[in-house]
Amino acid sequence: MDISSFLTSLGTSFVIFIVLMLLFAWLSTREGNAVVYYPNRIVKGLEPWEGGSKTRNPFAWISEALSSTEQDVIHMSGIDTAVYFVFLSTVLGILVLSGVVLLPVLLPVAATDDGVRKSAHSTTSNGTFSDLDKLSMANIQEKSPRLWAFLVATYWVSVVTYFLSWKAYKHVSALRATALKSDEVKPEQFAVLVRDLPDVTTEGFKKKLLRAEAIYEESERKGQGMKPTHKAGFLGLCGEKVDSIEYYNEKIKELTQKFEAEQKLTLREKQQGSALVFFTSRVTAASASQSLHAQMVDNWTVTEAPEPRQLIWSNLTIKFYERIIRQYAVYFIVFLTIIFYMIPITFISAFTTLENLRKLLPFLKPVVDVDALKTVLEAYLPQLALIIFLALLPKLLLFLSKTEGIPSGSHVIRAASGKYFYFIVFNVFIGVTIGGTLFSELKTIEKNPNSIFEILAKSLPGNATFFITFVALKFFVGYGLELSRIVPLIIYHVKRKYLCKTEAELKEAWFPGDISYATRVPTDMLIVTIVLCYSVIAPVIIPFGVLYFALGWLVLRNQALKVYVPAYESYGRMWPHMHTRILGALLLYQATMLGYFGVSKFLYTPILIPLPILSLVFFFICRKKFYGAFCHTALEVANQELKEAPHMEQIFKSFIPPSLISVKLEDEQFEDALSQVSRSESFV
Amino acid sequence: MDISSFLTSLGTSFVIFIVLMLLFAWLSTREGNAVVYYPNRIVKGLEPWEGGSKTRNPFAWISEALSSTEQDVIHMSGIDTAVYFVFLSTVLGILVLSGVVLLPVLLPVAATDDGVRKSAHSTTSNGTFSDLDKLSMANIQEKSPRLWAFLVATYWVSVVTYFLSWKAYKHVSALRATALKSDEVKPEQFAVLVRDLPDVTTEGFKKKLLRAEAIYEESERKGQGMKPTHKAGFLGLCGEKVDSIEYYNEKIKELTQKFEAEQKLTLREKQQGSALVFFTSRVTAASASQSLHAQMVDNWTVTEAPEPRQLIWSNLTIKFYERIIRQYAVYFIVFLTIIFYMIPITFISAFTTLENLRKLLPFLKPVVDVDALKTVLEAYLPQLALIIFLALLPKLLLFLSKTEGIPSGSHVIRAASGKYFYFIVFNVFIGVTIGGTLFSELKTIEKNPNSIFEILAKSLPGNATFFITFVALKFFVGYGLELSRIVPLIIYHVKRKYLCKTEAELKEAWFPGDISYATRVPTDMLIVTIVLCYSVIAPVIIPFGVLYFALGWLVLRNQALKVYVPAYESYGRMWPHMHTRILGALLLYQATMLGYFGVSKFLYTPILIPLPILSLVFFFICRKKFYGAFCHTALEVANQELKEAPHMEQIFKSFIPPSLISVKLEDEQFEDALSQVSRSESFV
Repeated sequence: MDISSFLTSLGTSFVIFIVLMLLFAWLSTREGNAVVYYPNRIVKGLEPWEGGSKTRNPFAWISEALSSTEQDVIHMSGIDTAVYFVFLSTVLGILVLSGVVLLPVLLPVAATDDGVRKSAHSTTSNGTFSDLDKLSMANIQEKSPRLWAFLVATYWVSVVTYFLSWKAYKHVSALRATALKSDEVKPEQFAVLVRDLPDVTTEGFKKKLLRAEAIYEESERKGQGMKPTHKAGFLGLCGEKVDSIEYYNEKIKELTQKFEAEQKLTLREKQQGSALVFFTSRVTAASASQSLHAQMVDNWTVTEAPEPRQLIWSNLTIKFYERIIRQYAVYFIVFLTIIFYMIPITFISAFTTLENLRKLLPFLKPVVDVDALKTVLEAYLPQLALIIFLALLPKLLLFLSKTEGIPSGSHVIRAASGKYFYFIVFNVFIGVTIGGTLFSELKTIEKNPNSIFEILAKSLPGNATFFITFVALKFFVGYGLELSRIVPLIIYHVKRKYLCKTEAELKEAWFPGDISYATRVPTDMLIVTIVLCYSVIAPVIIPFGVLYFALGWLVLRNQALKVYVPAYESYGRMWPHMHTRILGALLLYQATMLGYFGVSKFLYTPILIPLPILSLVFFFICRKKFYGAFCHTALEVANQELKEAPHMEQIFKSFIPPSLISVKLEDEQFEDALSQVSRSESFV
Repeated sequence: MDISSFLTSLGTSFVIFIVLMLLFAWLSTREGNAVVYYPNRIVKGLEPWEGGSKTRNPFAWISEALSSTEQDVIHMSGIDTAVYFVFLSTVLGILVLSGVVLLPVLLPVAATDDGVRKSAHSTTSNGTFSDLDKLSMANIQEKSPRLWAFLVATYWVSVVTYFLSWKAYKHVSALRATALKSDEVKPEQFAVLVRDLPDVTTEGFKKKLLRAEAIYEESERKGQGMKPTHKAGFLGLCGEKVDSIEYYNEKIKELTQKFEAEQKLTLREKQQGSALVFFTSRVTAASASQSLHAQMVDNWTVTEAPEPRQLIWSNLTIKFYERIIRQYAVYFIVFLTIIFYMIPITFISAFTTLENLRKLLPFLKPVVDVDALKTVLEAYLPQLALIIFLALLPKLLLFLSKTEGIPSGSHVIRAASGKYFYFIVFNVFIGVTIGGTLFSELKTIEKNPNSIFEILAKSLPGNATFFITFVALKFFVGYGLELSRIVPLIIYHVKRKYLCKTEAELKEAWFPGDISYATRVPTDMLIVTIVLCYSVIAPVIIPFGVLYFALGWLVLRNQALKVYVPAYESYGRMWPHMHTRILGALLLYQATMLGYFGVSKFLYTPILIPLPILSLVFFFICRKKFYGAFCHTALEVANQELKEAPHMEQIFKSFIPPSLISVKLEDEQFEDALSQVSRSESFV
């Protein structure tokens, strides 16, 4: 890619961004769009914009985002979102501190060197050597003493990363502790989740041990299938057209009767091997969740209870070994998906030719045979298959992660996010670098197989240009679309006009959901990986990385405060996951640098060897020092006084799934449960 | 080794064994030797032999050992010893069940096949092919369908191992649970060990959290150096000769004063960053030891307290990260020792020539210059160096393990035992097989480097003969010496006659110590590894393995009941360690078989591939199901009622180190500690 096409691409992205920004400025001030641009404020019962005036500055959002504090974010969107901003600002800090040193030093060092290398290089790689490459390490001669500057820079970036990620870990740990110490009663802090209770049919075995703990068991699998609102909703959308209010009333009556009978049956007889156990004190609950309860570890496994809203009831009944087997099966499937994901795409592409479509879906024939349409379809069908497959991937990964048997929603999202990260780094970053280079250099490699590493390393600066364009596209177009919310806006207006009849349906049409971490975090991590890996080789990439994270911080600050409504609160448990991957990216960067310096025949390359070791040591120290407090609640934290004594009935009720809420709990039954709560409390 | 020299070696060992047995029968019935042959009974205040009659059957010990129950062993020697017998009988069971099928099937299958292979083999390896090899897989032709029998046998041995080791794990887990459930008060069950208290100089920081827990802190480093009995003992042995009772009295008075001053100073001011915290209930202690106490995991780390007698006071003050660093440093040193242990030996051998000795220790000159002595010394000095180094190795490994910062004696022994196992398997088993073969076949390998695996595999049956002799030597001579206790007997009589003046010194002279697991378990594991690996290749080895473990069981049963006095009780925590290594041996066996079948060019070799995977799965299932209960005490177990309410003062005092026992605790101080105990109890 030469410099002019690079600038064209950059310019186009920038124009799209400006257009989207202006669109946002115009659309967001219109009264009717408030539910699209301020849903979080509306859900929380606030005025869409502060002060309530209609004639506001369309760029006020920028100053509002900049002036908002971490406390505002926690207040409006919870700890998880605040932690995401710690992540963004940490990476931003790493890139800014790196850039401040690397740009003024390395660019002149690289630009003022010309030598044999340039001409030699341009011969082998057929003109991929562009003007941008003059500013990169590719312009430095082999064995040149100028390489010392790059070597020191490699250390600088690493040290900055250690320092800032350490500070961030400390900060997040404190955020989490403060949130958990809160003097408000949160039901999940008074409960533990007990799984793998011995089989309920063998009553004697069940009594044997800790029976008092099993006060509340629940089979949701049956219950969920019978949710009347849910089911009625489905019928309304997909059922046969009957369209009479009488029919629905009839149907609802009939279903309600069945449903109530099922609910009672469930409570009385369909108890499964899991239980939520409630305690009157947070310390006791925290301590109980960390203790081994049975001599055989595959029985009575105890964990902290997730929030009621993120509890995945259907996973609770999965048994210990089944969970382990499912986990490894899922890992294996994901591994295959990551390695061979091109194969199903090729297959689908081959399958979705016009010929095949005509055969399989004959009713499409008249459409397909139109000449103009034919040309367009033939060109785009394979790409369409690719786009659909990539769009389905996060859903597939979420489904697979849920299949593992994880009991909490936030944990499923973390698991899916991890899988997506490996997919994206392997297929985009490594795939582009290695794949692209190997194909173009196939002949050279055939002649001399040992040159493969040299060729790969030498192609790195050339790839930098590609990735710069990629990053720029990501932030200009990606964040432009994010802020302007064009797609949700159109969907909302279409639904409002043609589909929605009731207030509830309308709310559903504009309800924004949460900041989808499962895809957002891996994408950010991919940018971190790319920018870190190229930071020293082609420092020009750093400003683009800075722009990505600065713009991301700004836009998402607005979205967090005004748009997205968090679906759960995990008190920052995503952080260790992010921290590990930042260090993973750093390690990949250090390995790349080691390889690249090696190819440059720089004598002092071994000076870099301590770096990866240092990274691993740093990782283990962080893990030892901080990670435990993210797995369990420390007693020091749980041991804070509450504003008021916990209301056990309320806590207990908050865990009743929606499908059972209408069941009138017989007083006797509840009294019984409550007395068991206090009994088991005094026991531990 | 041909058949006649093999039988000679076997015969010699057997004769030595018979002689030692007769010696034992004669010596053990003599009154004066009772303290050598029955010290455990004497220490426990029992008559040396049951019934007390002097004219007893000299072989009664056999029937006594055979008729003793597991409860007898637990009563006389504790859970750890009972678990060691579970280990012995499990391995014995595996070998018997394997042998019952393998011997009658595989020996005829091997012996009745003769073919190309025999002559071909004897050509390449120069007559190492002996009559014994006729009974091994070496006698089977390549690709022969007879190999099916060996393939099925490979599965049979694995299945037997899974089955019996699973049963054993279950049994040991129950043994441990029963012992921990005991209604007797054991001080360590009421205490937890808190390490890494924040720095004591920053008093404010210390108060911040859980201060109530730090009721009893102890710096033993200083205290130990001042133990008067200990120090006086040392002086008596190694000090200058002063030999007057007045001198000692003076000395003791002087020391006692210093000592008491130091004790008070220690209690008042030299508090260190560790504490033992006592609870009035076992459940609370168990729960507290499993909970995370501080948000930063490197502070306030809490573990179950070890028994008072095995607490390593000097390790308690070592800080969190120092422990980790020490651990890795020790691992690294051990790794180097295992790989390069021949190098220091060579160095020492070179150094301990007569020339050097003459130079360095001139006073030896007259001795060294005697001609006859010179010859003997020159021949034996290198071997002597080797023997001394090997004898020092367990001590070195124990020292290294202790240096890691482990706070309990039994844990140090487990750690040393693990290190010794790797050493012995690497240097004896793998070293003999690979080293021996490679040297003898160096020329063939030089010609064709790819043949190295084939040569190794083909040399396996030949090595079997060597290892059979090795195993036989181990059990005939090893257990003969063990039972007859010739060495301790001689040492005791020499000491009694020439050195011991007081009753205490006499007791010290005959006190037997415990069954030294640190060396015994790895040696047994080496035999397990050898016999398992050769079980299918040369089934003749199985009876020798059976004899080793049967004889070991019998002899050690006698020693456990009558001789050794256990130094600690860890409630079977050695078992997971043994179980892992049994499975490790099995895995090595399966890998060997895969390789050997591969070299036999047997088409169906891939049928063996599931075996190692199965072993790993089995290992992980065992670990998941059982291991947790060996790391922590399950609440189910701790929640048993006691015979009587625990006497907190007694529990508290049992943890006071011997060097501080004479300090008169001021009542006030103790009251204070006790009240803190109950306070911290109510807190958790």
